[in-house]
Amino acid sequence: MQGPKKEDTLRRLKTAVGHLKAVERMVEADKYCADVLLQLQAVIASLEKISSIILENHLETCLRAAMRRGEEEEVIAELKTFMKYKIK
Amino acid sequence: MQGPKKEDTLRRLKTAVGHLKAVERMVEADKYCADVLLQLQAVIASLEKISSIILENHLETCLRAAMRRGEEEEVIAELKTFMKYKIK
Amino acid sequence: MQGPKKEDTLRRLKTAVGHLKAVERMVEADKYCADVLLQLQAVIASLEKISSIILENHLETCLRAAMRRGEEEEVIAELKTFMKYKIK
Amino acid sequence: MQGPKKEDTLRRLKTAVGHLKAVERMVEADKYCADVLLQLQAVIASLEKISSIILENHLETCLRAAMRRGEEEEVIAELKTFMKYKIK
Repeated sequence: MQGPKKEDTLRRLKTAVGHLKAVERMVEADKYCADVLLQLQAVIASLEKISSIILENHLETCLRAAMRRGEEEEVIAELKTFMKYKIK
Repeated sequence: MQGPKKEDTLRRLKTAVGHLKAVERMVEADKYCADVLLQLQAVIASLEKISSIILENHLETCLRAAMRRGEEEEVIAELKTFMKYKIK
Repeated sequence: MQGPKKEDTLRRLKTAVGHLKAVERMVEADKYCADVLLQLQAVIASLEKISSIILENHLETCLRAAMRRGEEEEVIAELKTFMKYKIK
Repeated sequence: MQGPKKEDTLRRLKTAVGHLKAVERMVEADKYCADVLLQLQAVIASLEKISSIILENHLETCLRAAMRRGEEEEVIAELKTFMKYKIK
């Protein structure tokens, strides 16, 4: 990843780390579990958003380049790995 | 949360924070996106596991106690909130 | 389930059966796989919607009644089964 | 889809239609909602399995062929559509 997409992804990751540490403090401070669960779900949603940003960028850059170089078998193998791990 | 469940949850959260920071470093260091995606998916899976541990504990403690106090409307409202946010 | 919720659920289920048979005919007629996948995804989304309607109704009726009868252990056991099968 | 994969997919779809009709009969006969939900979840799981079989086959046939013809833009556009609809 390069340029503004990389900056955006890093900014989102830093925010998610901060958010996850806040969840940790909530558990330490014995906050009500339902509130912890809602915050944890928000972190998961933000990571899924980051994952889709990275995946879309990957398609637009590395996978497009690989296809242009005629490396379709490598592209297919990688897409099958993504399917296996439910990356979406 | 109390006792060993709380310790286990905190340990898992700390591990997830460390794992997520490693993902951040991978993006900073321009690692291959497919590898970043696999690591990010692993963090998401670990957070979903933590969420299910907290939810199960919550059922067994707070929600059981609330039901015993006859607060079924509060329990139902909370379970509907969990449904809305796809907490599972 | 009773009354209008039951009728609504049955109507949605009949529509989903018809939609799924249409997907079957698309496969039989060698339609383009990407189109088949989009239709199949739409059927899955409609079944998830039906599942959430039934679950919400179940909370509002059977589980509320069970809580009022003091059967909290049965309610907890059932909610844990739903968690296990990712019903949401 | 062709040959044994097509036959397998059609057989799975027919089974899913029969299973979904059974869910419809359960709702009509006022069966216990928790049992209905478990059966409905099983249908959803079978459709997700069918979706992944079709997607894998699609990668191996149409998308590989499109890449070999140099149609990488069409392939990328289609993969982005799959991402948008959470096809996995």
